[in-house]
Amino acid sequence: MRVQRLGERGLIQRIRRRVGGVTPGVSAGIGDDAAVLQPTPGAWLLATTDLVIEDVHFRRRSAGPADIGWKAMAVNLSDIAAMGGAPRFALVALACPEETEVEEIDLFYEGLTAAAAPHGVAVVGGDTAASPGGWIVNVTLLGEMTGAPRLRSGARPGDVIAVVGTLGRSAAGLAVLEAGRRPNLPADVLDDVAQAHLRPVARVAEGKWLGTRDGVHAMIDLSDGLATDLGHIATESGVAARVDLTCLPVAASARAVAEVLGLDPLELAARGGEDYELLFTAQRSAAEAIATGLRSATGVPVTLIGEISAGNPGVDFIDAAGRAVDVGQGYEHFHG
Amino acid sequence: MRVQRLGERGLIQRIRRRVGGVTPGVSAGIGDDAAVLQPTPGAWLLATTDLVIEDVHFRRRSAGPADIGWKAMAVNLSDIAAMGGAPRFALVALACPEETEVEEIDLFYEGLTAAAAPHGVAVVGGDTAASPGGWIVNVTLLGEMTGAPRLRSGARPGDVIAVVGTLGRSAAGLAVLEAGRRPNLPADVLDDVAQAHLRPVARVAEGKWLGTRDGVHAMIDLSDGLATDLGHIATESGVAARVDLTCLPVAASARAVAEVLGLDPLELAARGGEDYELLFTAQRSAAEAIATGLRSATGVPVTLIGEISAGNPGVDFIDAAGRAVDVGQGYEHFHG
Repeated sequence: MRVQRLGERGLIQRIRRRVGGVTPGVSAGIGDDAAVLQPTPGAWLLATTDLVIEDVHFRRRSAGPADIGWKAMAVNLSDIAAMGGAPRFALVALACPEETEVEEIDLFYEGLTAAAAPHGVAVVGGDTAASPGGWIVNVTLLGEMTGAPRLRSGARPGDVIAVVGTLGRSAAGLAVLEAGRRPNLPADVLDDVAQAHLRPVARVAEGKWLGTRDGVHAMIDLSDGLATDLGHIATESGVAARVDLTCLPVAASARAVAEVLGLDPLELAARGGEDYELLFTAQRSAAEAIATGLRSATGVPVTLIGEISAGNPGVDFIDAAGRAVDVGQGYEHFHG
Repeated sequence: MRVQRLGERGLIQRIRRRVGGVTPGVSAGIGDDAAVLQPTPGAWLLATTDLVIEDVHFRRRSAGPADIGWKAMAVNLSDIAAMGGAPRFALVALACPEETEVEEIDLFYEGLTAAAAPHGVAVVGGDTAASPGGWIVNVTLLGEMTGAPRLRSGARPGDVIAVVGTLGRSAAGLAVLEAGRRPNLPADVLDDVAQAHLRPVARVAEGKWLGTRDGVHAMIDLSDGLATDLGHIATESGVAARVDLTCLPVAASARAVAEVLGLDPLELAARGGEDYELLFTAQRSAAEAIATGLRSATGVPVTLIGEISAGNPGVDFIDAAGRAVDVGQGYEHFHG
């Protein structure tokens, strides 16, 4: 059935039946002018929003409705994780063409709630509209934390720079999806990088854990690429960042794709975006305990990749020969 | 200068300079992964979100960038007002074509903050993207209230139905803007209805005042039209609503436009949407004091238009002869 036959009210009722339900902290959810929520006493409220637009952020050729829903939620989960917070409440706005099949919208919400459910996030409201073009999604996510949120401005000279997990899988996945031909690689490698791109997993548990450690000073999620995102920390903190390219934790699957497609694996890792791993800076004396502790608590490795110093805000990448190299910038909209 | 020349980071810095600043309750605003906010202890948190899309919600032919910004904020303010709450924090996501002039984006934020500023609302975050089509805006607004939020589900048999302000101006304004010719009417009449459509004023003070009165049971803002929005109250409350068409407070300017364009003024008032007035139900014994009190506190009239009774959920419109008439439904997306 097409959504134009169901109508807007029918669609909202359908969404409400599927994603509604009784949730702690939600006094009124979908179906009123605004959601009515009960914040945790004494906690900071965190709020983030992301637009996800067809042919800008994804292509329908490679991303199904469930992928779109998953990713729209995951990128917001990642923003809350990057503060050290716990995600709680989501508002979901969706515009799609009138001829869209309702089952596609069901799949969209299935993907979205599949990404949200492990973290206890409730969809508490939203909006629906007809789109004159492709799919348009906006997710706003509210989170909370009782300790101090980790800002981009918190880095201090002497800090080490660390990355949670691995780099380059999402950019490798995008390269595979856009290649137009199936690279000669094992299915599990191709699946690993494609899934990293289409269904990124936000580091929510890792962010919450890091948010409880005193030695963690600044944090950001890697959405626009290491070069750009670390640049944000340098700018906001007024510090210089130096990254040792030989230390980057490039994923094995990303290396394999790079080799077959003739790409530079370090470029995928340093410039490619959408890995949604966390980057943080930490007091040097605390770094080893943090890395060991996070691995022990979550199973995810931490890699030290560089250091922060006083100096003009910026990021230097140093190669194996000790030379500064230009890895370019990551993805940005409105590129001139 | 075009936005593609400024680049995404340049644009975000520009927005931050213009709409940022120190605001009570905002620990970190634009420029981090998420905003860090301090909720009022003991208050309910209200959250609403609205997509505003070119050629769906507005046309560039009649709406300038400042109008788009104003309305995207106003429709959200209206949702918070309809709960009885105080709006506080906004997240603004904007996608526009790469060739957009930066000055147009400045105007967009000027319109948006002009609507928000009287209520002390701070823009605390957002997102920017290139759009493959027209302008796409999503505003999420967070509000608070210490008393009980007024839900759509609160109407009780015996309640009177009341409307704040007047009806029909926005639909009349849309009719004028879409007419393609200038109707033979005084400029102040045309300006009144056009402004009502392009720059609706949310009833924030009125909603907050009503939210403090015990006798006010249910409330909603008139965005989709009286018939549809009162229908939401009937459905959510499980009650029947009866409206006396002869009581509708049709704006004089809307009557004038209806006459010249050959439209039914009652249809503009009962079915036309986007007046962003408030509709509420109240205990009959309290209604007169509420109407007098609101007028005295805010200068805005309240009109009693009907009553709630036990019965099958729905809305009956009764004409001067006492007959039930079909006024049709208001605007909905995905109309079949």
